[in-house]
Amino acid sequence: MSRKQMVRPGGRSARVQASVHTAVRELLSEVGRDALTVPLVAQRAGVTPSTIYRRWGDLQELLSDVAVERLRPDTAPGDHGDLRSDLAAWAEQFLDEMASPSGRAYVRDALLGDPDGGNAGRCSAYAAEQIDALLARATDREENAPDVETVMDRVVAPLMYRILFRPAALDAAYARRLVAGLLGTEEGSGQ
Amino acid sequence: MSRKQMVRPGGRSARVQASVHTAVRELLSEVGRDALTVPLVAQRAGVTPSTIYRRWGDLQELLSDVAVERLRPDTAPGDHGDLRSDLAAWAEQFLDEMASPSGRAYVRDALLGDPDGGNAGRCSAYAAEQIDALLARATDREENAPDVETVMDRVVAPLMYRILFRPAALDAAYARRLVAGLLGTEEGSGQ
Repeated sequence: MSRKQMVRPGGRSARVQASVHTAVRELLSEVGRDALTVPLVAQRAGVTPSTIYRRWGDLQELLSDVAVERLRPDTAPGDHGDLRSDLAAWAEQFLDEMASPSGRAYVRDALLGDPDGGNAGRCSAYAAEQIDALLARATDREENAPDVETVMDRVVAPLMYRILFRPAALDAAYARRLVAGLLGTEEGSGQ
Repeated sequence: MSRKQMVRPGGRSARVQASVHTAVRELLSEVGRDALTVPLVAQRAGVTPSTIYRRWGDLQELLSDVAVERLRPDTAPGDHGDLRSDLAAWAEQFLDEMASPSGRAYVRDALLGDPDGGNAGRCSAYAAEQIDALLARATDREENAPDVETVMDRVVAPLMYRILFRPAALDAAYARRLVAGLLGTEEGSGQ
């Protein structure tokens, strides 16, 4: 699905980030991960390699930074009339995106070149922001809604854990079972 | 905590694995991750670099393989008299180990050099085996017990997700809340 690239304000700094990120994405599709090098990215982006090393440290950190931008949702979660439908639809889409080959690659990149854990935290924050939006909408409808951390534990965490560690039998029905389990039906009590 | 190294049966193959794994662990503590190279490991292990490349592909895959062995529990989970106590104690220990600097490094290594996902699957299988043992013990005591996949979703997944993505405020009380939430008390319904 479409993703937007976040360009931080800041003139040249923002332009450098945008051109370097674009260069990485283009080169990933043109030459692939294994052939990617900092000098190659620098050449394509029209900056010096030292600019990239200074700002990103190394290629893995740059890939992590690019991955997090790619994982940033570009739309508010859809409104399907009630929390159960909204959350089920969101969870199915989240699983669909994150379990795709490119989604898995981005999640792994985000986790890897991430010495301080900031990029992994941003990935998680993106999910939490979307959940927050769903819960606020439910509250506006005067529906009972769990808190965001509970949704992270009961829906987001199991989806991401299984994507990373045990992807077998991971399907939309599983995502719906997690939501049903959280919002209180028998379905969700088993896997 | 102590970990045992698994040596697969198979004569020379097993001896090569054991010596290479030992060399990696020694060199990680002596020279650190960044200075580690395949030739260095090969020299320490008394094998040729090509033996390592042939068997492990590259350094990251070797590190992943070593990490999974280090993450393998060497003891059955403790018996504290009932499922709630057993699971709470196990979850606290799991969090304690996996959230430690070395635990995080091993989990990341296991996830990274893992093209086919087999090592991540083994990490998850180790946890599932320990949970299975707890649940079998509870069944022997004629306690009501959830199924293993439900425990993976409700306890293991949230712990690992937060270790990887949002480590703030991760403590033993959180692990106990997850267990309480699964086994049915108010505590577990919030974060």
